[in-house]
Amino acid sequence: MQVITSLKNPIYFNSFAAVGGREEGIGPLGEFFDFLDDSDLFGMKTWEKAEGEMSRIALNLALKKASLSPEKLNLIVAGDLQNQCVASSGGLFTFGVPYLGLYGACSTCTESLIVLTSMMSNSHKYNFGAAVTSSHNSAAERQFRTPIEYGGQRAPSAQWTATAAGAFVLSKTQTRAKITAFMPGKIIDGYTSEQNNMGAAMALAAKDSALSFFEKEDIYSFDLVLTGDLGQVGSSILEELIDNESSFGSHFSKIHKDCGNLLYDKKERDVHSGGSGCGCSASVLASHILPMVERGEYKKILLMSTGALMSPTSVFQGEHIMGIAPALKIEHNPI
Amino acid sequence: MQVITSLKNPIYFNSFAAVGGREEGIGPLGEFFDFLDDSDLFGMKTWEKAEGEMSRIALNLALKKASLSPEKLNLIVAGDLQNQCVASSGGLFTFGVPYLGLYGACSTCTESLIVLTSMMSNSHKYNFGAAVTSSHNSAAERQFRTPIEYGGQRAPSAQWTATAAGAFVLSKTQTRAKITAFMPGKIIDGYTSEQNNMGAAMALAAKDSALSFFEKEDIYSFDLVLTGDLGQVGSSILEELIDNESSFGSHFSKIHKDCGNLLYDKKERDVHSGGSGCGCSASVLASHILPMVERGEYKKILLMSTGALMSPTSVFQGEHIMGIAPALKIEHNPI
Repeated sequence: MQVITSLKNPIYFNSFAAVGGREEGIGPLGEFFDFLDDSDLFGMKTWEKAEGEMSRIALNLALKKASLSPEKLNLIVAGDLQNQCVASSGGLFTFGVPYLGLYGACSTCTESLIVLTSMMSNSHKYNFGAAVTSSHNSAAERQFRTPIEYGGQRAPSAQWTATAAGAFVLSKTQTRAKITAFMPGKIIDGYTSEQNNMGAAMALAAKDSALSFFEKEDIYSFDLVLTGDLGQVGSSILEELIDNESSFGSHFSKIHKDCGNLLYDKKERDVHSGGSGCGCSASVLASHILPMVERGEYKKILLMSTGALMSPTSVFQGEHIMGIAPALKIEHNPI
Repeated sequence: MQVITSLKNPIYFNSFAAVGGREEGIGPLGEFFDFLDDSDLFGMKTWEKAEGEMSRIALNLALKKASLSPEKLNLIVAGDLQNQCVASSGGLFTFGVPYLGLYGACSTCTESLIVLTSMMSNSHKYNFGAAVTSSHNSAAERQFRTPIEYGGQRAPSAQWTATAAGAFVLSKTQTRAKITAFMPGKIIDGYTSEQNNMGAAMALAAKDSALSFFEKEDIYSFDLVLTGDLGQVGSSILEELIDNESSFGSHFSKIHKDCGNLLYDKKERDVHSGGSGCGCSASVLASHILPMVERGEYKKILLMSTGALMSPTSVFQGEHIMGIAPALKIEHNPI
């Protein structure tokens, strides 16, 4: 039975930072990123190490903004797309902070904020925690598809895995942006094994979570429903499905945005159906959306990062791609 | 800063089940498993699908013992060793229950119980949840090492990835075994890239968690410290390190057991340094240890599944294997 956990005592976004690579820098949100590296290597020798380094830099910058030393953190919750999530464990171990590793594919940003919020709410001893998520285009291409040197042609419905990381320091002391509720998502069969159309595979999960959530909460009180990386194909599917199947119909499409559509400018760079990857929703949230919540330009939003639960092996073996879309309610806090 | 979360309201083990393959069946705990399949295939066509099926069977059996329908579950928290954790998502999606996926390598059993306990404690609406963990020897061999058909010789310090799954249904209604505290582990550098000696790589993390935990809790009140899969090599290293570096010295080795040493009988079958894999501590806990806690043969135990955070890619790139050892306090509840 699907449950929304509403927090009597909210957890606050203390600070956050977004780190990106070349494509993210020239995109429409480039100016809002805290750190960009045109080489996509971040001083490392491999794409895999570069991803871990992005996470490390993102958390470092977030801690600096909060004037916090790592010892003040009670927990890091993190995840990424690499096999065995080694970008997160390898990149973040130097902080010396207790750690919970997650795997929710590209839904990991929202999932990590849910788990961290839950852990912090449970004990008065937890004062600060961090949630960190990353993805790296070149590491993902060679792990999931083909090495970029191969120069394979991409399908129009394919998405561009973001080279990006987002880090969030949460606290119990009041700030201008707060987490007030969360709801984990169900695993929903995407009814496709088509790796080049993840947006379509995840749209059904996003629909399931949105309908469950707005059965209990009033959608008209929300300014924004922010999905993670449905891209253009997945977003149209989601909006059409909800238009047909919900009581609020086309209102959903008026307040729906997708991080995969916000991160890149399709006219400038051909990213096909839009951005994807764990780092996509994490960096869009940290660079663009949370500052707007802090300023009160958004009063109440629902973050639903979307994940495609599959591996190259499961796809080769003919399994369907499963989708998941955990949901997090974030509100402006007028102080 | 490392924090132990003590629960004002404990969370209870409502039911649990262990599923295993051929080697687990002929091991010393075989008779306590709820379901065994000599073929290791569980009716599936691939080892990878077989692992997901083990998880599904384990949760099905645990639900049956509790006379619960899946709709009563508010959350499943699960993880496994396969790339992108597809055994868990693929095996458990049919239950239609909200899901959080984790990756803590072989520490996932303890990690999943921590996250589930935290989520359940946070909301009065959560009544039942399930934690499920699995690993499959043949799936792990071809993913991490070489396909078993290759017949490669194994090092004496190598361990045997268990073909096993454990499922735990937790509730808020009293039973004879309860979770009373937890503490996530830190990521600790194992100072080795030696894939055939994971026990040694993880021993340092187990030491770190044990010393942190027993700095705040009285070790003499515990009957058992149960590590996950250090095996014989890792267990000796851990016991020697703690003997040298702690105030309680050799007392630790008197109450320390390792699931990797309990699962197989080395004289019968050559598993080298012992069992390993997420399914190792999950199935030993569900088949053997929790029934003893329920009967009061153990009054208070500390479960510390141990994880080696690495991937074949990270090892090929010369990275160290990182260890982690989250800790969960389980107590007999005399009702």
